[in-house]
Amino acid sequence: MPSKQIYFDYNATAPVLPELITRYKNYLSIYGNPSSFHALGRQARTAIDEARETIASHIGAHRSQVLFCASGSEANTQVIHTVVMKQILEHKPQHIIYSAIEHPCILNAVKWAEKMGVPVTEIGTNTLGQINLRDIEAAIRPDTTLITIMWANNEIGTIQPVQEVAEIAKNHGIHFHCDGVQALGKLAIDLNRIRIDSLTLSGHKIGAPKGISALFIRDETWLRPMIWGGSQERQLRAGTESTPAILAFADAVALAESERETMIKRLTDYKHRLIDWLPSVNGRLNGDPNGLATTVNIRFPEISGESIVRNLDLMGIAASTGSACATGSIEPSHVINALNLPESDRRTPFRISMGRGTQADDILTLQTALETILTRLRNRR
Amino acid sequence: MPSKQIYFDYNATAPVLPELITRYKNYLSIYGNPSSFHALGRQARTAIDEARETIASHIGAHRSQVLFCASGSEANTQVIHTVVMKQILEHKPQHIIYSAIEHPCILNAVKWAEKMGVPVTEIGTNTLGQINLRDIEAAIRPDTTLITIMWANNEIGTIQPVQEVAEIAKNHGIHFHCDGVQALGKLAIDLNRIRIDSLTLSGHKIGAPKGISALFIRDETWLRPMIWGGSQERQLRAGTESTPAILAFADAVALAESERETMIKRLTDYKHRLIDWLPSVNGRLNGDPNGLATTVNIRFPEISGESIVRNLDLMGIAASTGSACATGSIEPSHVINALNLPESDRRTPFRISMGRGTQADDILTLQTALETILTRLRNRR
Repeated sequence: MPSKQIYFDYNATAPVLPELITRYKNYLSIYGNPSSFHALGRQARTAIDEARETIASHIGAHRSQVLFCASGSEANTQVIHTVVMKQILEHKPQHIIYSAIEHPCILNAVKWAEKMGVPVTEIGTNTLGQINLRDIEAAIRPDTTLITIMWANNEIGTIQPVQEVAEIAKNHGIHFHCDGVQALGKLAIDLNRIRIDSLTLSGHKIGAPKGISALFIRDETWLRPMIWGGSQERQLRAGTESTPAILAFADAVALAESERETMIKRLTDYKHRLIDWLPSVNGRLNGDPNGLATTVNIRFPEISGESIVRNLDLMGIAASTGSACATGSIEPSHVINALNLPESDRRTPFRISMGRGTQADDILTLQTALETILTRLRNRR
Repeated sequence: MPSKQIYFDYNATAPVLPELITRYKNYLSIYGNPSSFHALGRQARTAIDEARETIASHIGAHRSQVLFCASGSEANTQVIHTVVMKQILEHKPQHIIYSAIEHPCILNAVKWAEKMGVPVTEIGTNTLGQINLRDIEAAIRPDTTLITIMWANNEIGTIQPVQEVAEIAKNHGIHFHCDGVQALGKLAIDLNRIRIDSLTLSGHKIGAPKGISALFIRDETWLRPMIWGGSQERQLRAGTESTPAILAFADAVALAESERETMIKRLTDYKHRLIDWLPSVNGRLNGDPNGLATTVNIRFPEISGESIVRNLDLMGIAASTGSACATGSIEPSHVINALNLPESDRRTPFRISMGRGTQADDILTLQTALETILTRLRNRR
């Protein structure tokens, strides 16, 4: 591996925050089982309660509404699992509305729900990746019980009108689940203001270690357990609590929120530098220029995104063709497909995603590298 | 909390190994998403592959047979989930045989499976907590597809004849799942020799951080996904891999195995000191004296286990009444119930569980503390 790596893959995962690496020794030393009665158990229980309170306070929630899980995929799956269980075990007919550009965890869980007998309706997006609220209204049926729309897309950064979706859902008495993994630390999340019913958050996208996530659940009586065992997490998610990762997650949320506005201002500037520069190298932006400041999904017509990413990698620059969760797939991304690009452009996209550590110099290095790569690849044709 | 804590709750969880606390900084620095194509992603992928190989090599498995999960509860639940999915989605009738003293994750998952329409049969134990192989033979039906028996019990330490159960299961073409959480690091696990079909292992019981577990699966085509998302873990368990915890888990397995025989010899000596001392204070052992060396489940007739544990806690000694996962429950432990103790004795048990850090002095301190507590509690009557 080249000694210095320039990292443009923050949407896949973020480096663990140096502050947390330093503190982790202390987190690891809180080892009692939080379910144990004794002093060491109570110490761990108290630490977890404080972490839960910290996270809740930053998203406009009560700490009893925050459940810890191990991944965004797990939290999202449990929401879909709940709907399936309600239909099968409680004999309440269910219907799910979801968008075509959800993360694979929602898409694959929805496919499973459909196999289990729950009817589902997919809604598309426009060429910027935005859903249309009228499509949601039109998809609602008398038996619709769940609308699941992600807050911000991981591949193209498009931000959805979640407040408006929440209002539609509320008016129809439908549960609104939102995958907020890419929103955390990048957008203000105030659940007092936005009536989302459940929201998935992940630690490793904001510099906590991998393996920790949270599910905000406004009314816990709605949710059903998926993982069975002891009575952890209000009997909704069994398994000994991952204390050190939970403490790190809370610290990461607090740090991200304290720095969010400054960071987003800086990254917005970088994003526009890239967007303004693209025409000079015959590049195009995929998705909404007003989407996440962190995310710039690019295409150079007739040049595969994979070849760009491979060449950047050889120069010590980490980027991706799209979702890390879909790496190795030979199919074009489902998100890119939803944008209705010309067929010939569907393998061209690649993603630059920025974060806390991204500096202006990195943008210059990236531009120079891309110019070199483009010259080489275009001369080869 | 008293400054020095003496820890006798290893079966609930173990302190993170000092070696791992030191190394964790390096683990945390391997931050690339293992699904990413670039150098940082490949670095993480390689590290995880090596960790998988390490764990596989210590249990007589191939690395492709080891899946990482977030908890023992998750791994156990996925096995039960698989059986339910086969019945519902693949229309293959299923039947589960399990023991009355399984961990709550198996018991509660089995209850869920039954609600989902899968017939189940519970087998009991003798007064030592041992299952009877003839009970298993007798419970087998033409539609039996899963036998799930834990290797060693978390509350009383009784070790089950898993090799014989494996042979019975194999002869009938039935999948044998074994919850090996309490066996890892305490008993030799050689899956080349014992035909277990799937085995759950957990990191935090042997000094890895909480939040990491593994499921050995002999034939991956048997298993079905429970958590949906990307194609991680051979498409059987989605979610970004918890790299640092995985690396720590592998190191913990290697350390535990290198020290196992020496540690077990020492703890066996301590266990027998306690067993030999018990009559002098009118105490009795619950479970099998030849069970796990780490586990001594005790009762003092007419004295509640809870009062013993509370008093030990006040003296800076961490013990438990039984499973940490059942703390706060007002019901007697299901394991103790299975032993068929007199009704009046069912709230008396408490558990001393030992591990790597337990020293001879701790045993002396415990004995003195218990003598003091017993004198006080008996004089009060």
